[in-house]
Amino acid sequence: MVNTLLLPELREMLAESNTAELAEFCSALNAGRTAEFMEGLEDGDLWTVLQYAEPDRRAEIFGYFDEQRQVELLQTQNPKEVAELVDKIPSDDRVDLIQELTPDRVQAILPLLPVADRRDIQRLRSYEQGTAGALMTSEVAMLSESLTVAAALGELGKQSNELETIYYLYVVDDDSLLRGIVSTRQLVSSLSHPERTLGEMMETDVVVAEVDEDQESVAEKVERFNLLAIPVVDSGRQLLGIITHDDVIDVVREELTEDVHRIAAVEPLEEDYLRIGLLTLSWKRGIWLIILFFAALLTAFALEHYHTELSAYIWLVSFIPLIISAGGNSGSQSATLVITALTSGQLEVSDWRTVIRREIVVSLVLGSFLSVIGYGVAIFLAPTPFAALVIPSTLMAVIIVGCFFGALLPLIFQQLGLDPAMMSNPFVAGIVDIMGIVIYINIARAML
Amino acid sequence: MVNTLLLPELREMLAESNTAELAEFCSALNAGRTAEFMEGLEDGDLWTVLQYAEPDRRAEIFGYFDEQRQVELLQTQNPKEVAELVDKIPSDDRVDLIQELTPDRVQAILPLLPVADRRDIQRLRSYEQGTAGALMTSEVAMLSESLTVAAALGELGKQSNELETIYYLYVVDDDSLLRGIVSTRQLVSSLSHPERTLGEMMETDVVVAEVDEDQESVAEKVERFNLLAIPVVDSGRQLLGIITHDDVIDVVREELTEDVHRIAAVEPLEEDYLRIGLLTLSWKRGIWLIILFFAALLTAFALEHYHTELSAYIWLVSFIPLIISAGGNSGSQSATLVITALTSGQLEVSDWRTVIRREIVVSLVLGSFLSVIGYGVAIFLAPTPFAALVIPSTLMAVIIVGCFFGALLPLIFQQLGLDPAMMSNPFVAGIVDIMGIVIYINIARAML
Repeated sequence: MVNTLLLPELREMLAESNTAELAEFCSALNAGRTAEFMEGLEDGDLWTVLQYAEPDRRAEIFGYFDEQRQVELLQTQNPKEVAELVDKIPSDDRVDLIQELTPDRVQAILPLLPVADRRDIQRLRSYEQGTAGALMTSEVAMLSESLTVAAALGELGKQSNELETIYYLYVVDDDSLLRGIVSTRQLVSSLSHPERTLGEMMETDVVVAEVDEDQESVAEKVERFNLLAIPVVDSGRQLLGIITHDDVIDVVREELTEDVHRIAAVEPLEEDYLRIGLLTLSWKRGIWLIILFFAALLTAFALEHYHTELSAYIWLVSFIPLIISAGGNSGSQSATLVITALTSGQLEVSDWRTVIRREIVVSLVLGSFLSVIGYGVAIFLAPTPFAALVIPSTLMAVIIVGCFFGALLPLIFQQLGLDPAMMSNPFVAGIVDIMGIVIYINIARAML
Repeated sequence: MVNTLLLPELREMLAESNTAELAEFCSALNAGRTAEFMEGLEDGDLWTVLQYAEPDRRAEIFGYFDEQRQVELLQTQNPKEVAELVDKIPSDDRVDLIQELTPDRVQAILPLLPVADRRDIQRLRSYEQGTAGALMTSEVAMLSESLTVAAALGELGKQSNELETIYYLYVVDDDSLLRGIVSTRQLVSSLSHPERTLGEMMETDVVVAEVDEDQESVAEKVERFNLLAIPVVDSGRQLLGIITHDDVIDVVREELTEDVHRIAAVEPLEEDYLRIGLLTLSWKRGIWLIILFFAALLTAFALEHYHTELSAYIWLVSFIPLIISAGGNSGSQSATLVITALTSGQLEVSDWRTVIRREIVVSLVLGSFLSVIGYGVAIFLAPTPFAALVIPSTLMAVIIVGCFFGALLPLIFQQLGLDPAMMSNPFVAGIVDIMGIVIYINIARAML
């Protein structure tokens, strides 16, 4: 998000090296807004302005630039200043950024960081993309259970600059094993009993994420329990870090967008639509287009098989696209509804009987409607009103088939442990198309 | 989420009216987990168990039941107990629940509530669904700027039971006009200066939501600025309430699911897939199926128009579904990619030139691939290798057309202020189908 309103003033301040005004600019507004006003500058100017901000503030403003810009700056600007900044970026974000730099650049910057940060970065880099480990930040308030309310608040005050969130305190023993959790809310409302210890107050039944847990399942827990942050532990329950609510919103958006892409038969993009390489994009679309194409080829062979019938009743040809699209559209509606209900947790595979029952009722209603309209048109194009009956009969049958397979296939894939969004659309389309043709010609054969 | 593990024990405790154990059950685990263990009970038993929890805890556990169950309980259980519970539910959730009750029930419960709550409910009910007002809670920490850090913490401690979040303090003047914001983090890290006032510390450049602002735009702000909560103000900047991060996750999920449904040509459902009435469901699907059906009817008329050509070259008929589906699939890929990029803010309408340029390149790549495969098959079904060239030529053309319109139409709808997800799919399908037929026959005519 770029706001060009202050660009002339900023350029002037830079030209005059007006330290006072630049420092004022960096601190007066909230960090997000400051970032918007700066983002229109060239990399070099932007970087110069940033240096006028206090180090913590600098990292905060930097965090609002878009990711591509962040990488560009870290890649090209003065290594010493870059290292100074990297030191202040929350540990989860900083690892993601470092992954994007060239190996040379990483080699140039890592040695300039304090040894503790360097280790932290190495450790976080080792977690696989898409797991809790890759999302977490290691900056977490770990406190001992013997601490009193007053001491804990004091400790929190001291650490707060280095923590991404201070709203939960994690109570650990000497081996960093997670014992319980105390919210800052509890702490604040216990101010009248400053001598109470964290051990007395802590909730011991803590919802945790395993370090190798899939990010989708982590997001689901955070949503279900309305958490501001979730602790990440290893299999021995050692506390490794936390995942905060803002990362969870990103996961929800990412996972749902992946579903949408899969439903439209695109392999999920890992980059922005405008930034992804055109060959990668072609591949991610082409792979599914080719699969769908082979499914459609089956319809070509089926039709080839029925040339005699079609030559004899050429008016039947006019309705081929109509019949295929009616089946395909109703099938993709059913598939999409079932997929979204599955991913949002509204539906379980065990509900399959209800789903099928409901889909059959709906398909009868939809089929009746479209059949009536279809018959109204067919009367004009078919040789006799009786022959025209082929159209509504076929429509009814393909819509029932479309809804049935559209709803059933995602459930089967879910049951098999496959992503229902990934597999169902091409299969539904393929199956319904070919069945549509076969149903159509056979009904025509029987009736004409 | 139902967990049946403890159901036998719970039933036994109920049969024995074992007060001690039931109270223990209600307080030992975290509230979300307690809710899971209870949810398998019948309404009456569930309600009885709930009464053993402390009032605040009771509301917390209740908050984890699924919404349908919550409404059922509020609708059927003892009005006095219901009112006691409603009093403790966060103000935004409680309004949503009350909207679902029968008018009789609302009449029975409202008079049992304290007058302040009653007014609050009336006020929140008046905001339109889908706006910031309908999402917000009115329980917010409003403090005066003359308060010191120490006094503010004390005040927060006292109010914390009634607040949904204590992590931002809103500084207001005597008319509740929003003057600034102080985070609890700032408060905690200023503990060493307990005499500082909120006025000295507050951030005055606050990101706010207008009360009638669309929920999608509110969610976007919260995401962009990584907020835990956003204040809601009226046009005079009077602070009316706040929207918390958990409601924002719900909005993101809801809006994206709506997009998915619209892309699959289903009017967004307002209820769970398994709960929505079958007639409503049929309507929400039927309306788009009928629109798509009329679009497909155009293809029937177009084909009717070309009967002479088709009778002469009956082998062309075999490829009709293939050609239509290649155009339709590549178009729906483009449309979906553009729609998701628009809604996630990766893309603006002003980028249209880049989009079209990229789509044309991608369509050339995809078209070349499918044309080669298509020609390989067509050779066997067409009378001569030259005649078979009609198929790859047509495929190339329809894929370019599909990608072009698929990408362009959502951009046009966005520019017109319409929801790109709602309008583009049916239009893309309709336009691409009919153009596919016309292109096909005309290429065939020219070449054969």
